[in-house]
Amino acid sequence: MTLNVYLSGEIHTDWRDQIIEGAKGLNVAFNSPVTDHAASDDCGVEILGAEDDKYWHDHKGAMINAIRTRKGIADADVVVVRFGDKYKQWNAAFDAGYASALGKSLIILQPPEHDHALKEVNAAALAMARTPEQVVQILRYVLEGSLPG
Amino acid sequence: MTLNVYLSGEIHTDWRDQIIEGAKGLNVAFNSPVTDHAASDDCGVEILGAEDDKYWHDHKGAMINAIRTRKGIADADVVVVRFGDKYKQWNAAFDAGYASALGKSLIILQPPEHDHALKEVNAAALAMARTPEQVVQILRYVLEGSLPG
Amino acid sequence: MTLNVYLSGEIHTDWRDQIIEGAKGLNVAFNSPVTDHAASDDCGVEILGAEDDKYWHDHKGAMINAIRTRKGIADADVVVVRFGDKYKQWNAAFDAGYASALGKSLIILQPPEHDHALKEVNAAALAMARTPEQVVQILRYVLEGSLPG
Amino acid sequence: MTLNVYLSGEIHTDWRDQIIEGAKGLNVAFNSPVTDHAASDDCGVEILGAEDDKYWHDHKGAMINAIRTRKGIADADVVVVRFGDKYKQWNAAFDAGYASALGKSLIILQPPEHDHALKEVNAAALAMARTPEQVVQILRYVLEGSLPG
Amino acid sequence: MTLNVYLSGEIHTDWRDQIIEGAKGLNVAFNSPVTDHAASDDCGVEILGAEDDKYWHDHKGAMINAIRTRKGIADADVVVVRFGDKYKQWNAAFDAGYASALGKSLIILQPPEHDHALKEVNAAALAMARTPEQVVQILRYVLEGSLPG
Amino acid sequence: MTLNVYLSGEIHTDWRDQIIEGAKGLNVAFNSPVTDHAASDDCGVEILGAEDDKYWHDHKGAMINAIRTRKGIADADVVVVRFGDKYKQWNAAFDAGYASALGKSLIILQPPEHDHALKEVNAAALAMARTPEQVVQILRYVLEGSLPG
Amino acid sequence: MTLNVYLSGEIHTDWRDQIIEGAKGLNVAFNSPVTDHAASDDCGVEILGAEDDKYWHDHKGAMINAIRTRKGIADADVVVVRFGDKYKQWNAAFDAGYASALGKSLIILQPPEHDHALKEVNAAALAMARTPEQVVQILRYVLEGSLPG
Amino acid sequence: MTLNVYLSGEIHTDWRDQIIEGAKGLNVAFNSPVTDHAASDDCGVEILGAEDDKYWHDHKGAMINAIRTRKGIADADVVVVRFGDKYKQWNAAFDAGYASALGKSLIILQPPEHDHALKEVNAAALAMARTPEQVVQILRYVLEGSLPG
Repeated sequence: MTLNVYLSGEIHTDWRDQIIEGAKGLNVAFNSPVTDHAASDDCGVEILGAEDDKYWHDHKGAMINAIRTRKGIADADVVVVRFGDKYKQWNAAFDAGYASALGKSLIILQPPEHDHALKEVNAAALAMARTPEQVVQILRYVLEGSLPG
Repeated sequence: MTLNVYLSGEIHTDWRDQIIEGAKGLNVAFNSPVTDHAASDDCGVEILGAEDDKYWHDHKGAMINAIRTRKGIADADVVVVRFGDKYKQWNAAFDAGYASALGKSLIILQPPEHDHALKEVNAAALAMARTPEQVVQILRYVLEGSLPG
Repeated sequence: MTLNVYLSGEIHTDWRDQIIEGAKGLNVAFNSPVTDHAASDDCGVEILGAEDDKYWHDHKGAMINAIRTRKGIADADVVVVRFGDKYKQWNAAFDAGYASALGKSLIILQPPEHDHALKEVNAAALAMARTPEQVVQILRYVLEGSLPG
Repeated sequence: MTLNVYLSGEIHTDWRDQIIEGAKGLNVAFNSPVTDHAASDDCGVEILGAEDDKYWHDHKGAMINAIRTRKGIADADVVVVRFGDKYKQWNAAFDAGYASALGKSLIILQPPEHDHALKEVNAAALAMARTPEQVVQILRYVLEGSLPG
Repeated sequence: MTLNVYLSGEIHTDWRDQIIEGAKGLNVAFNSPVTDHAASDDCGVEILGAEDDKYWHDHKGAMINAIRTRKGIADADVVVVRFGDKYKQWNAAFDAGYASALGKSLIILQPPEHDHALKEVNAAALAMARTPEQVVQILRYVLEGSLPG
Repeated sequence: MTLNVYLSGEIHTDWRDQIIEGAKGLNVAFNSPVTDHAASDDCGVEILGAEDDKYWHDHKGAMINAIRTRKGIADADVVVVRFGDKYKQWNAAFDAGYASALGKSLIILQPPEHDHALKEVNAAALAMARTPEQVVQILRYVLEGSLPG
Repeated sequence: MTLNVYLSGEIHTDWRDQIIEGAKGLNVAFNSPVTDHAASDDCGVEILGAEDDKYWHDHKGAMINAIRTRKGIADADVVVVRFGDKYKQWNAAFDAGYASALGKSLIILQPPEHDHALKEVNAAALAMARTPEQVVQILRYVLEGSLPG
Repeated sequence: MTLNVYLSGEIHTDWRDQIIEGAKGLNVAFNSPVTDHAASDDCGVEILGAEDDKYWHDHKGAMINAIRTRKGIADADVVVVRFGDKYKQWNAAFDAGYASALGKSLIILQPPEHDHALKEVNAAALAMARTPEQVVQILRYVLEGSLPG
């Protein structure tokens, strides 16, 4: 069994690297969005031409990013969505809803201060984790049946 | 043609009433989540028994609310998601993602200051409106082909 | 919003009547399997002819009952599955799994002594209730937003 | 043609080993749940933290196990569900219902004393077998067209 | 519960009338193909213009008939397929396969001499009946839980 | 049986009126896009605000029109797509492809000079008609089994 | 592009071998039912135990064969269904209907004397061929764009 | 992540070669229709026999081409549809609609003079590009996150 795992959400800390590093040796294939913030914001206009209106500037970029995001989620067995402590992160919650409607197994990775605000998102998930290490332990257990410690 | 419209998101202003009032006479059936904040937070423990842990308190409530939300979105042709100027509103973005994956027609209702943060959500929508009146005008046009003014 | 509710599982107590009675006045349409135990066991051979082998006797009946069960679950928004204190009740658990795979909102109604044995079933549900009254309260809240007491 | 086979149900005898051993040389890929009973019960709290309430202890574990179970069933062409002679085994029946709703080919493996109690489950299956060897013979026939003896 | 029943297959005896007559008072909505043999054969060329080639003559008619057949099966909960004692009746078997792939509950109505030739079709059905009266009894049992006699 | 029919394509002649008039008395519910050309072009900017760039002007309108078009096609049993003798009519062909992928019964209404250019579209259809009267005759035959003349 | 092709229907001539031989070098993966008539008839009772009643003898076998047939059709891009000049061949027509409902590309291989009886089946197909060689030519054209001669 | 890309539409310039050449080294698998115009027009009659009527000549060919087109679109993650400056190109728009209904990510490649006529098609797309090079840049960004220049 190979597990396809999509790592959605917060892009300012190294949580993806921690999970990918921790999962070395496991039969997991990871995908994620483009995590270069500037490229992600500007890909639309850089490739398809400038826009005077910031709204359409953003729109063109968001649509190109959607090509990757949709593919990543559609191919995934498990979608991990990380909520950090800054920004609105509506795209993370959007991905969680999108993945949930497709019947993907959701793991939410979030700090305790967001518990109440994320209650609907967590209610759609199969696990709510606090640390990347816990996500790795879940993946290891799911694939190999072994528990930490 | 009857249009089923689900009104998701912000529950602290009267935008739903404005849309429902404005759409009087149109062939629209509206649904929405429970908008009584306290009831929505406590429905789980009120009905199924208290929890010591706030996390499970929230969880039981969010799962019961999901019965209504899922039904409302599943039945909808159009899902309007309103983002206000307060709170995290991750449940709103979650609903938008959920509706999008089901192929529902999305209308996002939001103030300009959220344009950048909502760019991925807007990119999945068929309309981004600023006022409840615009939503009504869209519904009227979709159903009757008539434009304002 | 009309809620279609399928009442699956245990057929030896009056829990269905309690829920239907309690939900009077709510916008709910109830369905359930044939609850006449003898008719349910013998419908196959009574209609389609006797079988020497008890296995095929049972088989013919179970297949005819499946016509009703599948329709009831397919049409449902909410599937309530009741586990009693007797019998194997594998058909109840089968219905729960079937409903879950179709994305129906599951409510499990069960006594505390089954908590551990039903943990996988409960993990797929949006509510675990102890009494028919709680199920009614959930339906009332989902439809009207009002809590008991 | 490679056949993906998920082996669900009873975890206290070596029936899985018998089938996997017997199917050596056939083009079959097997998957199964975690069959370490203790790990399966405790995975939730071992990874994500202890719970005071046994119900949530079970719940957290069951949800993590669901990541593996759902993936195993979703990927399967054939789901074999084994009912033993002990315990409630509602998770086995739940898996059978879940697999049936997804259109998987079901094989039920069970002793004669359960025939009546499993009649609804058997009615959804393409084969009811008594021994692991029969399951192997079915897989061999399906893949290679050859019969025993 | 209203049951939608599509009556497919043989068009030279009055079995449909017997079922519809027998089911009077039951909550059933029946549909069926056009049973006027000549109209069914010629509808294509009568409406859309003559064809020199008999193959296309047949083709145009069969495609128009498909509009009705697909709609009838798509809307059905139960598809009854009747095999008579004459003709090839491949359209009947085609409808059975089509309905089966859509997950419809199949009832096959056929004389004993076809048992072996119909074994694959019967294996996909929930009931194999010999008489229209038995079909009526199944519908009555499914809707009202009452058995004959 | 009520047939839902969506009338897509050319908006400059009265073919829709002819079909609706001819089908009076038949159990058909018709839907169609907004056929007021100016309103259809400008609905986006009239409701949601002007755009400097003609591309986004068109885009906003086309997305609002998609709310109606998608609903009309999704609800339809039969989609009639009319190709006239002017304009590119790519939206008509787009609707035909969209409807085809959803498994709708397609009827193409077109003049002979487009036969070759429409061969892929016709190959996905169940009927190719030359006149609105023929479409009416198909609907009458499908619903009532009666042929013209 | 690899094309998965399922070869359904008549099992008494070597048409499958002709197609497989003719398609050598093409990127095609073929599957087919068990074509050993005796094994196909008796697999149920040989593996799972004898039945007194011929109906159940046939039934058990047909259900085991369905494991292979469903998998073969589900995995296929193209389903070729061959009708010969003997027997009822209802399983062939059933497979054609099943494949059609799943949206598979159908090729019907049949002699001219069956044209009228197969008109509904042909109307669901993308090609009606007379010889195995024509089927090979279609596969070659679809994969490589080259025509015979 | 491997991206499956289907290149639909105009077959008279070398835009496909430019994209395939430009995408060398990227993890992309390309498919496209048969682009030999004469073969595409005549494949039906060349393989399956001549037709007197040009309509059926075209029809037989278009249906065989549909085997390849459907497979290509069904397997694709991204469908690029190119509109050139000649011909009706209704098959291109049909493919765009077909792909859109299946939820594929659409990229439209078209010259500015078609902007208005393609507004409904563009409204269903995630990108509207002017040059094959832009399509390559989108694919590179989606797969590797890198922007041009």
